Amino acid sequence: MSTRQTLFFSATSPYVRKVMVLLHETGQLDLVQLHGITLTPINPSAELNSLNPAGKIPALQLADGSVLHDSRVILDYLDHQHGGTPLIPRDGMARWRRLTLASLADAVLDAAILVRYETFLRPEDKRWDDWVLGQCGKIERALESFEQAADELDEAFDVAAISAACALGYLDFRMPDLNWRRDCPKLAAWYTVASQRPSVKATAPAP
Amino acid sequence: MSTRQTLFFSATSPYVRKVMVLLHETGQLDLVQLHGITLTPINPSAELNSLNPAGKIPALQLADGSVLHDSRVILDYLDHQHGGTPLIPRDGMARWRRLTLASLADAVLDAAILVRYETFLRPEDKRWDDWVLGQCGKIERALESFEQAADELDEAFDVAAISAACALGYLDFRMPDLNWRRDCPKLAAWYTVASQRPSVKATAPAP
Repeated sequence: MSTRQTLFFSATSPYVRKVMVLLHETGQLDLVQLHGITLTPINPSAELNSLNPAGKIPALQLADGSVLHDSRVILDYLDHQHGGTPLIPRDGMARWRRLTLASLADAVLDAAILVRYETFLRPEDKRWDDWVLGQCGKIERALESFEQAADELDEAFDVAAISAACALGYLDFRMPDLNWRRDCPKLAAWYTVASQRPSVKATAPAP
Repeated sequence: MSTRQTLFFSATSPYVRKVMVLLHETGQLDLVQLHGITLTPINPSAELNSLNPAGKIPALQLADGSVLHDSRVILDYLDHQHGGTPLIPRDGMARWRRLTLASLADAVLDAAILVRYETFLRPEDKRWDDWVLGQCGKIERALESFEQAADELDEAFDVAAISAACALGYLDFRMPDLNWRRDCPKLAAWYTVASQRPSVKATAPAP
């Protein structure tokens, strides 16, 4: 029996990827073993459900058997477990500004995944264009906002930058026709550099 | 021009309610003015979108004009702005356990709101039973888990308890036929007491 922590994992989940990038960036990768899970909202994993009733990944089982979720809670936990510069500022207005940017990146993910379910999982005759348009509106507005915040993202590769990089990576992975770089040149330039970080390269989903 | 903070608000949003309960509990209600917003994912508010590109409430505009979102970030911010006992433990395993319980309550809300959109907003011929079943499974498993954690919820009226109370209140508000009390007697007893707190009573959505 291992006493290490277990991360319930999928290589294509952008929420898992945020955690993986933070593990890389903070030198904690060897402290966590990965346990692959395959699931959708209509095909849950009984094994995962017993650990996280919400049936979502990532979930992190600690050595004592207790389980932490969701990705934000796990990021917060892991960021308290290393001795380097915190990737979530501990206080001051920087904390809430960086967390707000991270929240906006999560909103991009939430919207993109709802679009994915609508256009891939749901039976064709039950898809609703207005729903997809509404979610895509959230993505487009968030991208505009990140374009204006590109210099801020560049200030530190922290929770805001990790979340934004994982959101942009997910858009490229699942919505390659979105062509977001055309309207967001500063964000695209930032992401080109961010994508070269070992933590981001090592966690990219296979095309 | 007011220099107070403005909370973008709806009396029926359970995410807003979490913030309102914390404002009550921490004596900060007078420091925030409320600004009502009406929206759905397919009928966004242009005013709100200009402040939170994700088009979601709550959003908190600070006196300097900057905007914080989403509800978790706002709760974290407001919990740092009062002198009482923190409602989000600052560190130690209690922090991540209470945040995990809060995350589970948010997962109940996320699922219940997706069910609401599916059964209320979406055109009838485009509704998908498997989707509703999948989301209801998350809610049922989470309720079982909260039933087992009822004693823990009772330890403090903090972020975990606030989030759980708002989730249960939303189930009663929008899914009154769920009859969750039948299978969750300890949770029901906890909620009966919690519902009598002034902060919870004052923020209950009108039936």
